[in-house]
Amino acid sequence: MNETIQHLLNHRSIRKFKPHQLDQETIEILVRSAQAASTSSYQQAYAIVGVEEENLKQQLVEVASGQTYVADNSYFFVFCIDYHKHVLAAELASGSVDQTVETTEALIVGAVDAGLAAQNLVVAAESLGYGTVYIGSLRNDAAKVSELLELPSHVVPLFGVAVGIPDQQPGKKPRLPMDAVFHRNTYTDDDTMRQLLSQYEKETSSYYGERTDGRRTEGWVNQMAASMKDPKRTYLRHFLQEKHLSRD
Amino acid sequence: MNETIQHLLNHRSIRKFKPHQLDQETIEILVRSAQAASTSSYQQAYAIVGVEEENLKQQLVEVASGQTYVADNSYFFVFCIDYHKHVLAAELASGSVDQTVETTEALIVGAVDAGLAAQNLVVAAESLGYGTVYIGSLRNDAAKVSELLELPSHVVPLFGVAVGIPDQQPGKKPRLPMDAVFHRNTYTDDDTMRQLLSQYEKETSSYYGERTDGRRTEGWVNQMAASMKDPKRTYLRHFLQEKHLSRD
Repeated sequence: MNETIQHLLNHRSIRKFKPHQLDQETIEILVRSAQAASTSSYQQAYAIVGVEEENLKQQLVEVASGQTYVADNSYFFVFCIDYHKHVLAAELASGSVDQTVETTEALIVGAVDAGLAAQNLVVAAESLGYGTVYIGSLRNDAAKVSELLELPSHVVPLFGVAVGIPDQQPGKKPRLPMDAVFHRNTYTDDDTMRQLLSQYEKETSSYYGERTDGRRTEGWVNQMAASMKDPKRTYLRHFLQEKHLSRD
Repeated sequence: MNETIQHLLNHRSIRKFKPHQLDQETIEILVRSAQAASTSSYQQAYAIVGVEEENLKQQLVEVASGQTYVADNSYFFVFCIDYHKHVLAAELASGSVDQTVETTEALIVGAVDAGLAAQNLVVAAESLGYGTVYIGSLRNDAAKVSELLELPSHVVPLFGVAVGIPDQQPGKKPRLPMDAVFHRNTYTDDDTMRQLLSQYEKETSSYYGERTDGRRTEGWVNQMAASMKDPKRTYLRHFLQEKHLSRD
């Protein structure tokens, strides 16, 4: 196993960083690493906004339900689906891509493109010794994020990535058993899946129990059943449509 | 710049592989690397199907418009959005997550989770000297892929990843100028974006011109205007809804 894979396997999200700012060279290396990822049909259907102004960072903390590490880090990136540049490109070529960019297919392409680019940025940052954390809670109020970062039509913020020097050493939360995620040729039958989930419930229950002196004992199965009971961020479809995406 | 970042920056998609099969240990290292990626709210809302049967691979070649490298590789992975395990988990806990998993939010979470996991797998594979290529054209017929891999309700195939020993050395296609992808604090104004796109049009036009002895000269701007003129895969929203996803 090589160093790159060791870094990947040792990943954990870092939510407390030491005071420090990234220099311009490092920011550019991280962005170039993101850009080097594969992209669907050469579309590069994502944008990255580097949030540098303290005032903006503080307002993003509020969107993210008060998670202070959205501001207290070495750098904060916001990843977006971006078809604005394709709309501009089509205008330059006297054409239109409006119908294409409003499809569910385009939504999927943009979300996956942004994901691949972001993960390359995270891998690059971690290889340099930085810690990282994804901030999905920017979607608590994508309209507010959009307003703060002046995102035009056809651009929608998906998540943030905070980068910084780790000031904590969190444990590594156990992942699902490999067989519950990785299937051979066909998807695993329900009985086997239920057994794997019950096994995982025990494993994650022990994990939490040990770390909370027994105060918390629910494992992944019960955690998911509770946290996913009520739908979240149900305004998103409407918001996407206002941005001229995901209409069809 | 370290070795990991050099690997990231040297990425190019490989579409011709030498005859070779991955051993089990390597397959497991790649899947464990994928699983180590961050995941939204611990959901791990993706599945990976390893396609090993030759018959299945050949049928996936057909779905992918005859791209033979879908079958001719060392291993073929299919990445899916997966909320089936959450539905089973909720049943085990006498609850229901049905309303949550059918939201646009859940669609975005699943697509991003799958993207992060896949990119980790790709980075791990390339660090071991393998070449990779993403296969988005599995979405040409997601229903057929779903049937072949026996994907249950709440599971939708997004893309494939072929891994193998490179048997070609393709050039690296120029990415968008950094300033057209990376914005500081607020999204770049339209005039600047148009200038960047025109500059990129010239750069990519030269790139293609040199590689085709002048037979092909359209750059990225004209390529996008042409390839994104007509919407693609417009059945997807309906298909997702049949799978009980993206209904709201």
